Amino acid sequence: MKFITYKYNNQEQVGILTKDENGVYPLETLGIHYVTMTELIENIKTEEIDSLSGMLNDSSKEYISTKDINIMAPIPSPKQDIICLGINYMEHAIESARYKKEAFGGDRPYAVYFSKRVGLATGHGDYIPSYPELVDSLDYEAELAVIIKKDAKNVSREDAFDYVFGYTIMNDVSARNLQTRHKQWYFGKSLDGFTPMGPCIVTKDEFTTPPVLKISSKVNGELRQNSTTDLMITSIEDVIYELSQGITLKAGTIIAMGTPAGVGMGFEPPKFLKSGDIVECEIEGIGCLKNIVQ
Amino acid sequence: MKFITYKYNNQEQVGILTKDENGVYPLETLGIHYVTMTELIENIKTEEIDSLSGMLNDSSKEYISTKDINIMAPIPSPKQDIICLGINYMEHAIESARYKKEAFGGDRPYAVYFSKRVGLATGHGDYIPSYPELVDSLDYEAELAVIIKKDAKNVSREDAFDYVFGYTIMNDVSARNLQTRHKQWYFGKSLDGFTPMGPCIVTKDEFTTPPVLKISSKVNGELRQNSTTDLMITSIEDVIYELSQGITLKAGTIIAMGTPAGVGMGFEPPKFLKSGDIVECEIEGIGCLKNIVQ
Repeated sequence: MKFITYKYNNQEQVGILTKDENGVYPLETLGIHYVTMTELIENIKTEEIDSLSGMLNDSSKEYISTKDINIMAPIPSPKQDIICLGINYMEHAIESARYKKEAFGGDRPYAVYFSKRVGLATGHGDYIPSYPELVDSLDYEAELAVIIKKDAKNVSREDAFDYVFGYTIMNDVSARNLQTRHKQWYFGKSLDGFTPMGPCIVTKDEFTTPPVLKISSKVNGELRQNSTTDLMITSIEDVIYELSQGITLKAGTIIAMGTPAGVGMGFEPPKFLKSGDIVECEIEGIGCLKNIVQ
Repeated sequence: MKFITYKYNNQEQVGILTKDENGVYPLETLGIHYVTMTELIENIKTEEIDSLSGMLNDSSKEYISTKDINIMAPIPSPKQDIICLGINYMEHAIESARYKKEAFGGDRPYAVYFSKRVGLATGHGDYIPSYPELVDSLDYEAELAVIIKKDAKNVSREDAFDYVFGYTIMNDVSARNLQTRHKQWYFGKSLDGFTPMGPCIVTKDEFTTPPVLKISSKVNGELRQNSTTDLMITSIEDVIYELSQGITLKAGTIIAMGTPAGVGMGFEPPKFLKSGDIVECEIEGIGCLKNIVQ
């Protein structure tokens, strides 16, 4: 099932995409009353998701055409910063070290975790700001993002997926000059508008556990990244296990699992984003997250 | 004026400390109705703060004895991660590089920004968890924390203090082994309970601009850190200016300005925290934030 957040008649709503993805069932027409995606994630029961799946086969249910809505990021205002993995695909580790060895080189026997501040996440179709006076090396990173379903503390690897609600696509937009000059990556990852997310959240029952999905990105139609999520160095269950030994991962937490090779800084010379570029991040079974650089 | 958050009759309230700090005026007895400190920061006007100052001179006002309250962190559940500065006092830069050159050494012409996840901040008097199975190098860091008053975007250095509500003390508790082994510092700074904060927020009108305050810490009564906030490398106005060029610093944002020399890893051999240790972080004019290691 694919949940989306959207504006209809200028009001934020949550709904479920129809099978052909040309329409959306507003939650309330299905008799479910969650105002925001976060509220839904925090409260919906697995049985409710199952019964919703059944309802969607009822062709008499009313839906709204996707032409009449404005899609938003599925979680427009996350309650906490997004937890991100850095350098979590081997080929991307190599390209990053080639770009700037002192920032990205060296041994990494442990996962790299950092965070990304997000006030308002950028929806599918919206602009990515380019900050021409501040950023000279704007880059894209297609990532699988995991959405946590219920508070996770001291979770074993075996139980990790019990805490997963579903998945979405995130473009971990990065200002390479800020990311590297401030040593810690936080500022260069956290500018307003640097978190395109969506178009939908797919519930975990749609995929195998762990999900093995093609992941790719294109800039102006040119294929840049092209990999699969089973090539991640640190797995989803490793991350939930490791972080939850110290941090309560609250319901609604978003964990972006890192990006494969083919980002702009990986090319010689680098292919950074410029105004007008169209960036598409695609993950099999989730969809395509498309944005335009302002 | 010193605002605190506390529990009285098991209910969370916001109040103002009496001059002798033996009592607290609940906001509502002063005719002001903010339920949480975040709501207060987001909504209170400068004139209201001024008129409250006047009211406090009225000795007939009722107050509660601080013996009858349980003090909490002034902002118990910050809306976003705390923004932190790393290595922002020169002597601390030297001691950090001596402890682990590959993690903390090198030139740093720009500020180091990272973030600290906080679900529930630790109040004055509460325990700091020690995670004996996960952490072998628990450390303290006394810091001046700046509280942002209203949304700040593209703010000049000259206007920076217009966006400051006040100040508190934060102990940036750190697991040095996790901080360094994961390259980015985020995980080692973000364990549950690693953000003691308080005891109060002092409004900015109580200090000069910028504030020049003695800052110190003690462990079991032994003086460890002892400096002043004018020795910060990157100033408060530099930080608000620089970050707000890219990030909207929302009302209620907490920025921890880094710690001076004298943390546990700075000693040879290091003096890390152990169960039962009493840690006191003190800043002139704000107070003393005292916690015990569990």
